[in-house]
Amino acid sequence: MSKGLLEHEVGEQAELFLLVKNSTKGIASNGKPFLTLILQDRTGDIEAKLWDVSDQDEQNYKAETIVKVSGELHNYRGRLQLKIRQLRPASPQDGMKISDFLETAPVSQDEMMGKITQYIFDMKNPNIQRITRHLLKKYSQEFLVYPAATKNHHEFVSGLAYHVISMLDLAKVISGLYPSLDRDLLYSGVILHDLGKVTELSGPISTAYTTEGNLLGHITIMVNEIGKAAEELGIKGEEVVVLQHLVLSHHGKMEWGSAKPPMIKEAEILHYIDNLDAKMNMMDRALRHVKPGEFTERVFALDNRSFYKPTFHQ
Amino acid sequence: MSKGLLEHEVGEQAELFLLVKNSTKGIASNGKPFLTLILQDRTGDIEAKLWDVSDQDEQNYKAETIVKVSGELHNYRGRLQLKIRQLRPASPQDGMKISDFLETAPVSQDEMMGKITQYIFDMKNPNIQRITRHLLKKYSQEFLVYPAATKNHHEFVSGLAYHVISMLDLAKVISGLYPSLDRDLLYSGVILHDLGKVTELSGPISTAYTTEGNLLGHITIMVNEIGKAAEELGIKGEEVVVLQHLVLSHHGKMEWGSAKPPMIKEAEILHYIDNLDAKMNMMDRALRHVKPGEFTERVFALDNRSFYKPTFHQ
Amino acid sequence: MSKGLLEHEVGEQAELFLLVKNSTKGIASNGKPFLTLILQDRTGDIEAKLWDVSDQDEQNYKAETIVKVSGELHNYRGRLQLKIRQLRPASPQDGMKISDFLETAPVSQDEMMGKITQYIFDMKNPNIQRITRHLLKKYSQEFLVYPAATKNHHEFVSGLAYHVISMLDLAKVISGLYPSLDRDLLYSGVILHDLGKVTELSGPISTAYTTEGNLLGHITIMVNEIGKAAEELGIKGEEVVVLQHLVLSHHGKMEWGSAKPPMIKEAEILHYIDNLDAKMNMMDRALRHVKPGEFTERVFALDNRSFYKPTFHQ
Amino acid sequence: MSKGLLEHEVGEQAELFLLVKNSTKGIASNGKPFLTLILQDRTGDIEAKLWDVSDQDEQNYKAETIVKVSGELHNYRGRLQLKIRQLRPASPQDGMKISDFLETAPVSQDEMMGKITQYIFDMKNPNIQRITRHLLKKYSQEFLVYPAATKNHHEFVSGLAYHVISMLDLAKVISGLYPSLDRDLLYSGVILHDLGKVTELSGPISTAYTTEGNLLGHITIMVNEIGKAAEELGIKGEEVVVLQHLVLSHHGKMEWGSAKPPMIKEAEILHYIDNLDAKMNMMDRALRHVKPGEFTERVFALDNRSFYKPTFHQ
Amino acid sequence: MSKGLLEHEVGEQAELFLLVKNSTKGIASNGKPFLTLILQDRTGDIEAKLWDVSDQDEQNYKAETIVKVSGELHNYRGRLQLKIRQLRPASPQDGMKISDFLETAPVSQDEMMGKITQYIFDMKNPNIQRITRHLLKKYSQEFLVYPAATKNHHEFVSGLAYHVISMLDLAKVISGLYPSLDRDLLYSGVILHDLGKVTELSGPISTAYTTEGNLLGHITIMVNEIGKAAEELGIKGEEVVVLQHLVLSHHGKMEWGSAKPPMIKEAEILHYIDNLDAKMNMMDRALRHVKPGEFTERVFALDNRSFYKPTFHQ
Amino acid sequence: MSKGLLEHEVGEQAELFLLVKNSTKGIASNGKPFLTLILQDRTGDIEAKLWDVSDQDEQNYKAETIVKVSGELHNYRGRLQLKIRQLRPASPQDGMKISDFLETAPVSQDEMMGKITQYIFDMKNPNIQRITRHLLKKYSQEFLVYPAATKNHHEFVSGLAYHVISMLDLAKVISGLYPSLDRDLLYSGVILHDLGKVTELSGPISTAYTTEGNLLGHITIMVNEIGKAAEELGIKGEEVVVLQHLVLSHHGKMEWGSAKPPMIKEAEILHYIDNLDAKMNMMDRALRHVKPGEFTERVFALDNRSFYKPTFHQ
Repeated sequence: MSKGLLEHEVGEQAELFLLVKNSTKGIASNGKPFLTLILQDRTGDIEAKLWDVSDQDEQNYKAETIVKVSGELHNYRGRLQLKIRQLRPASPQDGMKISDFLETAPVSQDEMMGKITQYIFDMKNPNIQRITRHLLKKYSQEFLVYPAATKNHHEFVSGLAYHVISMLDLAKVISGLYPSLDRDLLYSGVILHDLGKVTELSGPISTAYTTEGNLLGHITIMVNEIGKAAEELGIKGEEVVVLQHLVLSHHGKMEWGSAKPPMIKEAEILHYIDNLDAKMNMMDRALRHVKPGEFTERVFALDNRSFYKPTFHQ
Repeated sequence: MSKGLLEHEVGEQAELFLLVKNSTKGIASNGKPFLTLILQDRTGDIEAKLWDVSDQDEQNYKAETIVKVSGELHNYRGRLQLKIRQLRPASPQDGMKISDFLETAPVSQDEMMGKITQYIFDMKNPNIQRITRHLLKKYSQEFLVYPAATKNHHEFVSGLAYHVISMLDLAKVISGLYPSLDRDLLYSGVILHDLGKVTELSGPISTAYTTEGNLLGHITIMVNEIGKAAEELGIKGEEVVVLQHLVLSHHGKMEWGSAKPPMIKEAEILHYIDNLDAKMNMMDRALRHVKPGEFTERVFALDNRSFYKPTFHQ
Repeated sequence: MSKGLLEHEVGEQAELFLLVKNSTKGIASNGKPFLTLILQDRTGDIEAKLWDVSDQDEQNYKAETIVKVSGELHNYRGRLQLKIRQLRPASPQDGMKISDFLETAPVSQDEMMGKITQYIFDMKNPNIQRITRHLLKKYSQEFLVYPAATKNHHEFVSGLAYHVISMLDLAKVISGLYPSLDRDLLYSGVILHDLGKVTELSGPISTAYTTEGNLLGHITIMVNEIGKAAEELGIKGEEVVVLQHLVLSHHGKMEWGSAKPPMIKEAEILHYIDNLDAKMNMMDRALRHVKPGEFTERVFALDNRSFYKPTFHQ
Repeated sequence: MSKGLLEHEVGEQAELFLLVKNSTKGIASNGKPFLTLILQDRTGDIEAKLWDVSDQDEQNYKAETIVKVSGELHNYRGRLQLKIRQLRPASPQDGMKISDFLETAPVSQDEMMGKITQYIFDMKNPNIQRITRHLLKKYSQEFLVYPAATKNHHEFVSGLAYHVISMLDLAKVISGLYPSLDRDLLYSGVILHDLGKVTELSGPISTAYTTEGNLLGHITIMVNEIGKAAEELGIKGEEVVVLQHLVLSHHGKMEWGSAKPPMIKEAEILHYIDNLDAKMNMMDRALRHVKPGEFTERVFALDNRSFYKPTFHQ
Repeated sequence: MSKGLLEHEVGEQAELFLLVKNSTKGIASNGKPFLTLILQDRTGDIEAKLWDVSDQDEQNYKAETIVKVSGELHNYRGRLQLKIRQLRPASPQDGMKISDFLETAPVSQDEMMGKITQYIFDMKNPNIQRITRHLLKKYSQEFLVYPAATKNHHEFVSGLAYHVISMLDLAKVISGLYPSLDRDLLYSGVILHDLGKVTELSGPISTAYTTEGNLLGHITIMVNEIGKAAEELGIKGEEVVVLQHLVLSHHGKMEWGSAKPPMIKEAEILHYIDNLDAKMNMMDRALRHVKPGEFTERVFALDNRSFYKPTFHQ
Repeated sequence: MSKGLLEHEVGEQAELFLLVKNSTKGIASNGKPFLTLILQDRTGDIEAKLWDVSDQDEQNYKAETIVKVSGELHNYRGRLQLKIRQLRPASPQDGMKISDFLETAPVSQDEMMGKITQYIFDMKNPNIQRITRHLLKKYSQEFLVYPAATKNHHEFVSGLAYHVISMLDLAKVISGLYPSLDRDLLYSGVILHDLGKVTELSGPISTAYTTEGNLLGHITIMVNEIGKAAEELGIKGEEVVVLQHLVLSHHGKMEWGSAKPPMIKEAEILHYIDNLDAKMNMMDRALRHVKPGEFTERVFALDNRSFYKPTFHQ
């Protein structure tokens, strides 16, 4: 596919394959059913309406199917819409795969795994090293494809692993500047802090919360896992409780879901690194399509703020 | 011991054995050291000052020793003080035991254990029953002597078990009135909700937080324990996660230390029953020495409120 | 009526009499007026659209009229809708009464009145007993038919009385477990706490706030009534102020509309009992149509939480 | 008395009669009792210590007795203290009255009553006028001597009446600028808003809360009184509920003790006028002894702020 | 224009010139574009829908154009709508000016300027007087036409100046009642407090925030301006910092945008006067079209309250 | 001086020169005056009492004088105290300078200035570079000796400059990892963000707030300075407003004293870097004297948390 969905201008004709991310049936004021489709490729997603739909249409255009669409981009109340001219389901002959339409991390899974493996290899404390390696290995398959969240930040395929390697790099340079920090603890905290998401969330596509995710949450899930890992590995040192504390407290405050606030220096720094990388990701995405001299839309997860791109940038 | 400490009137001469609960050294304005003692028996505790102390005195009157004291009760800024006339350490011949001086639950350990055993026996869901029995058995020794907290409510020997049996009785009558409640779940939640305190706290006397207690807290500790118990017992059903959720959410809100709010009906009711019994205990203790027509001191854990005893009560 | 509205499945044809709970006129995008109807029977309510309406239709289908409707149940964005095929106003020959379509308490008015009368009869304090009996008698007619609220909990015919008898039963078993509680005070507090709603609200159908309700609220209204009752009955004891305090403080905190927080033990317990019964009612209603293994919709009045029905429940 | 207490400089010898406002017994580090006295005259109060006191001293120097004292003013940690050289109880021959030592409003009771009477006379709405006159008359004796509060603002003899006349003057000029305001309603709201304090508080000296004051509060007390007054006077109009609403809502928000926020324009303005006058009073008192270029102590009731007196003032 | 837009009754035919305040394109469920117009004259504004629009229509009816419209007023969900029968753009021959359709202050610009000039003339402190005069002169042109805000209060042409003169009159009568207030400081604070809005906002029509307004805000802008003015005028006294503090703190609290809370008496009073006038303006506007015995819509900027107009008003 | 104050053990005899940081007079219960001294050297400070002092003593031992003291370290309620045996003022012959006793940054002023100069030299945007250089030069003398705060973090001589170079190093490595960041803007923001403290605070010793500091605060002061600098340098670009925004918003939220929250990516990151370095400094200082396996005292500025030093750390 040469030109991506959001690389078209408003008013431009587009003809391309897209993935149906979401499909909702409505009843129009003339009493006839219509579909509100969210269509996406790797450059982003867009809303489109399909009027006067049959039961067959409803079947053809449900979530996670690929379609061929031609139409025109409109600006409706400041948001893009695709006005559909022609639409058909993709056929096997079109040779399309769902993964072609999903946004993924800009680094390959192999490269990410290699990087993390090196960080674990560098650890000097054997207890911390063994627990970290054990848990990463146990969940490596999911870890490499899951998003870091259902929305807000790193909500793409392999987003979790990408978030972790960015944080590891931050942990490295920051502990370079503050030598009193325990690197092993910090690296391990980074690798494990969100690993419970592979149980909390359903998977990389149409990501939802599992029952266990809803009732316990990724923090509690991983704190339990660290305990079990230590037992299986026969590790008894205080490192176990300290690692559990790092994961437990990484949301920073009770009202943000950490039953204990950070009470160890590395726990506090882990919380900071996590926030810093998440916010950089959110701000960069919000500013992606904004021109110098303009403000972004309000970003809910950033206290509903708009961000300004100075005119002297570019 | 015929007449207890707090059964004396202000101005009355007292001569009795007491336990030193706390002993702090200070330096008086004449440059000489003195001790601030907290002395207690089963009826409560009182502050007393010992002036011009020697190093020997400091040794003799440290925490957890028993003393024979004679003196007079004073009222100083609305709080009782004991003015010491004579003081000596108890000797073996006096035949005193520390346990004689500690407040304990008004029901015997055997009776409490019997009651709880019956509640477990009544459960119909075998998964819930087996996990509950397993964990109670594992920690029964500590469970029967620990307090429910270091302060605020049920802060006495066997306070934890006493709090649990009161809550079980509440759970029974409430589920009698609302038949849609799952009794097994509620009983198990009551029995397990604070059981992590036997790891969080140091013990029944001079109760302090352990490192694990500080870094993880009793909720996380017990959620982990339920997971381990299920694994050891080979239990796989949803009951495991649901019980973990009940314990996890029993503080009711994230800002009160529950990483998840109650999302199951019995979890919400468990939170209520816990609060109701804790508050009854706090109010009864605050009102114990208050006369009709008067207000209690402000109770910090009850939003710093004073409580009034109506004149028509007795 | 054989099969109730919400006892139909999605996709099923329904033909039944319903009450118009609410009727709002809109203008469709073709410029023609339409009506959004909320139709109800005892099993619940549903939205339906009536397109291209005449002035006559608007008259025929306004709130509190009974209609005969045939149509089909749809699921639109997770909410049920009724697609109308045929609609006509009920005629006198149909023999329908509005009360047939209203949800009411599951216990008869006589039975509820009998129960409360017995509770009042059991009181030992004559001042409390006389004030309670006087006020209940004064408003018994409204008390027996009013809802307990316009929404959230017990929002059905006789909901107020039903809420009160549930709370009385709770008060009885709880004061059985904590004998230091003053039963008379607690029973009277339960009976009077929401009685001001008969002045605050307009009535059992299409319930709205009265001007007095808006400007003063049911708490202030009833506190005033207790004062007047005492004057009329020539009662002078502290019971008057104490009962006023129980009503005044039953919302628990200033920010929830109680100008004073509970400062008497029974006032605190009244607040708990009120909450417990209201929450049980809200949770039971939210879970009513939820299958095991699923979550309810978010319930605004329960801190916007969803509740889960465990798979092992039935 | 020629020179008042706080008109002395630090280090200056003082010999004057003072009223014991408060007397608290302590036990010094030498084991001997001492008294902490708060002594006052119309210019303010000061702390003084009396060492090695006898039982007789304790009797002689309790609260609300007049003493003759000579001593020296010291500055101790930024607060004034009086170092007592000689002290004796005043004798009848000294001819001192308690009222000589109390701060009072700067306007006579007669003048204040005259002013308020005129404001009531100016009212045009007979219902409002009659209720206001009735209640003022009923409590005029207490109204003229009570303070407006136990601390924070207008906490002096006749402080309540003085606060009311200042607010009436504000109400007059503000309604002059905004003619849409209902003057009658505003004047009546001003006169009645704090009148419940004559029941809530114990009296002008050693002011404390009564049981009714604690359990109901001055707002609820006066809302009840307005209801009773209307009944006694046979007044039925909406003015009754509206006046009750003005009193009920004058604290402005639920969390500040108003069960309803202001929902009538004059209620909102009443809240403003009340605040404005209270804050002017607090700021003027805090700045009274402050030199240009300096800050006041922190004032708790003004959000713990300090206030600066600019150097160009005087 | 004889009869203004909002002077028509619901159901009445209207034929009049109106200004398009806002024009938004939508796509109807039949796939055809429509316009949602906000049309206004001096009496207020109303929504109207224009169906099936061409590109030409979109051009003809964009914001800030004048149109001739005939149609009928409807009530749709409690809000007025204009159902358009005929519509055309105004032609030059119609002789209409945009300013004819804008709400403006009820006092002429000359009169307002005269009044403010007199207040400045009355100042006795030359430093305060010179700074105030300098800044008013520098921005007088914008000051006389800008609104005081984009919404909420005084959001009309010359609203800023009108808000200032109302506040000056309040400042005069209040400092008349509290002679300890520094009138010069208060008058200057009133004149300068919102003057930064002429830089923060884009102008009197279609008012939006400028980049500088977004990034710095009117408070910071004016604090800077006072510093520059003092430098240009060679003024060194403490008046400069004190005036900056008054502007800086006039929102009253940090969370409302004042980096410092009021710490000078006149700063506190300025905050009160600002609020009082803004709230009077908001309440009067909300109550304008409300009949006695009814409530206004909820007003977001007044804590989302409704206001009641008593039946005895008119 | 061989061994520093806090390098002594509890119970050890100490004989050393110390600086009187603070001296407060009290009156003991025997009526005699005493002094509470805070004595310090570069290793920290300690409290000591001097009993029965003369007026001469008070003169000799006031703040900012150097004394020779011999005594013993005690532990009083968990805090160190120095029990004075001998005390005399230092004489000129002792050859002591105040600067010998003050904690200072661990890097020399020259080295810090060199580092910052290099960072400015590296900037590519001439507007940002010139404003930054101009302001740093204007205040370089104070900048190099001022603390970063009166308490909480970097509260030592040259603390401000040390805080800035640590933040610059952080800014460098973080913008290395996130290349979308504008390094010039970030470096300039770091250098200017707290520069207003040289006007807000009184100086490096006995640091207090100036009047301007109290009334405006360091943020407002520096925002004004940037405006003036731009005017003096004839710079007009958007860089001016953007730099002002970075300084204005660096406290992150309105309730923390930033009238605007960060609305530019670099402003958000500046806020993070500032926090990260301040917290590292606070945690390191709190943990300095704590042994593995122990908790620090509660740190007020870190949400009143204690921090744990794991046993496996050394």
